This record gives sequence, structure tokens and C-alpha cells, in this order.
Amino acid sequence: MDDITARHNEKMKRIKEARDRMMATKTGEKGLIVVHTGKGKGKSSSAFGMIMRCIAHGMPCAVVQFIKGNWETGERTFLRERFGEECRFFVSGEGFTWETQDRERDIAAARHGWEIAKEQIRDPGIRFVLLDEINIALRYDYLDIDEVVDFLLTEKPQMTHVVLTGRNAKPELIEAADLVTEMAMVKHPFREGVKAQAGVEF
Amino acid sequence: MDDITARHNEKMKRIKEARDRMMATKTGEKGLIVVHTGKGKGKSSSAFGMIMRCIAHGMPCAVVQFIKGNWETGERTFLRERFGEECRFFVSGEGFTWETQDRERDIAAARHGWEIAKEQIRDPGIRFVLLDEINIALRYDYLDIDEVVDFLLTEKPQMTHVVLTGRNAKPELIEAADLVTEMAMVKHPFREGVKAQAGVEF
Repeated sequence: MDDITARHNEKMKRIKEARDRMMATKTGEKGLIVVHTGKGKGKSSSAFGMIMRCIAHGMPCAVVQFIKGNWETGERTFLRERFGEECRFFVSGEGFTWETQDRERDIAAARHGWEIAKEQIRDPGIRFVLLDEINIALRYDYLDIDEVVDFLLTEKPQMTHVVLTGRNAKPELIEAADLVTEMAMVKHPFREGVKAQAGVEF
Repeated sequence: MDDITARHNEKMKRIKEARDRMMATKTGEKGLIVVHTGKGKGKSSSAFGMIMRCIAHGMPCAVVQFIKGNWETGERTFLRERFGEECRFFVSGEGFTWETQDRERDIAAARHGWEIAKEQIRDPGIRFVLLDEINIALRYDYLDIDEVVDFLLTEKPQMTHVVLTGRNAKPELIEAADLVTEMAMVKHPFREGVKAQAGVEF
């Protein structure tokens, strides 16, 4: 076993132990760490569906959007106008897109988003926090995975749900999570030359 | 090749041909037949997230719920009160649950739901129809898969999206669909003795 593998195994063991300590304090009801990953559709839209459920249950929500463009301006406006009371909406990644060449700016945007995320998660008035596309920022190491996992396991209030979306979820996050779903693409209309459709894709 | 295999292949070929004829008339923008299947979370909630997107785009929606209990009474009330203008909501499966022993009643409920579904899909004022958990009714042959697929391929208005959810989507439906996502369960808190949580599970 080489050094990298040994360090990785040791790290996973630490995460599992921290998780086990947290779980040992639970009695069947708890806020969950939820991950939506995979190449298929529905990672963000199912999280938004969960927000609708939370609102129906009177549970205040917050969204931190780490990637620009996943939700259109019109939709953010709609959420802010229709659900402004029930759901706070933050965009950290205005400049954080797939095309940007400015790594420093992207890192600053991701870190700014993470600072907002921590505030919202710590806020006892908030019961559900969506970190939309944070996995992209973690994948490129714009955010430190150890810091994020450690925060979730030690500082997340017991009854708060946190949902983290995006492709390529890191193994450390999957290890720490309670509920992980992989959205797998079985068939996609882009392959047939059909462009993205309002209401489905965005 | 036995008779059953031959009939199956012939049927799939007919569905593919009907689909190809439909696709040949498209020029890049079209209403989609979307399937959410698999054992993981997010099949219905992502469809509800899509409804939120449609409402933001000003696209009127309809939901036909084939299985009781997937959405709570409080949530249906919420949808009806908050989105009554933008989204029609029908429940066909009040008596259609996993536990029921009354197959005739289940079939009648499923067929009633399908009649409503056809009306909503045909309605030129509706742009997005969610057939929530219809795959369960199809799986048990409470509805005829050929009738459903044939209707979608021949009578669905060009720009209307139809989303069909539920485990065990039939191969005929996958063949007919434009966009198929399988939600796969990677990790689930029930395994750790944590019960279903408001805002996440329901």
C-alpha cells in the first residue's frame, strides 16, 4: 500500500468515525446530509422539488447557487418574488462558469459562496439548505473537501437538512452523507439533435 | 427465436418506427416524453421541480397522481392554494396503495387517472403534464402499455412535455421516450434506522 492509498484510507476512517459519533446521538429523526450526483438529469430540480416540500411543511429554506446558469434569471426572480418569505436565494457564482479562464476569480466566488453557506447552515431559523452545484467547486479544489465535510459533521444543527448537488461527488462527501442518489442518464434528446427545452432543462 | 421474443422485437420495432416518424417532423424544439425511473430518490421531486420551472416560464401544468401517499394532503393543499392558477392537480389513486387487496378497485382508479391524463395532455392550454407513479399502474397491467405509448406518440401535442415517473418503467415506454433518467440509490438512511424525514422524503 503506497502513501497516498494509506492516507486516503486513514482519512476515510476518520470521516466514518466522526459520522458514527454523530449517528450515535440520533434517535431516528435528524437532519440529513443529502447528495445528488451522476451525469443524469434531476440533481438540481429534485432539490428544488424538496424545497417546495419544505415550504409546504413550513420549513424555512436557503439556496446557495455555486454555478451560474443552472437557473435562469427569470426563475431566480420568480423564486424571490413568490417564495421570498420562505426561501433565501444566494448566487455566489455569477462569474463562475464552465468557460471562465480566471481561476482566481472562480476560487474567490466559490469561497464567498461557502461563507454564505456556513452562515445559512448555522442559522437556527433555517431548516433546509441547498448547495447547488457545489460538487463542481469541490472537484476543482476551489473549496477544500476536508473543510466542507468537517463542517457538515460537526457544525450542522441536528435537524437541518443540507443537500449538495453536482456531478463527480467526492468520495469523502459520499462517506459523510446519509442519503446519496446517482442520477444516471439512460437516454437524452441532445443525441437526436433536440435542443434544451424550457420547463425540462431550465 | 421463440414467439414471445419475436413478438417483443416486432413490437419494439413498431414503437421505434412510430418514434422515428414523429422525430422526423421535429426541427430541434419539441415537447418531450420524459421518464424518471429507478429505485433511488428524486423521481417525483425532480418532476415537481420541473413544474416550478414551468410556472416560472408561464407554462400551465397538470399533475395526475396515480399513487396515494407520495405527496401528503398538506402538500396537495399547498400546491392547490399557491399554484391553483398555474397547475391543475388530480388524484386518481386515493384507493390505490401498496397495501390494497382490491385489484378491481385499483384498476378502476388507474383507468380513471388515465382518462384524466389524456384530457390534460390533449388540452392545448396545458404545456406540461406529470403522470406521477404511472409506472406502477403500468407494471401491474392496470393500464395497457401499448395504449399509453400509442397515445403519447400519436396524440400528444407537439410542444407538450409529459413526464412519467415510477420504478420499473416498461421497456416499451423507454423506447418511446426522449429523455430517460434512472435514479439509483447509492446510500439510504433507512439502513441506519433513520425514519423518513419531512422535507426530504415527503
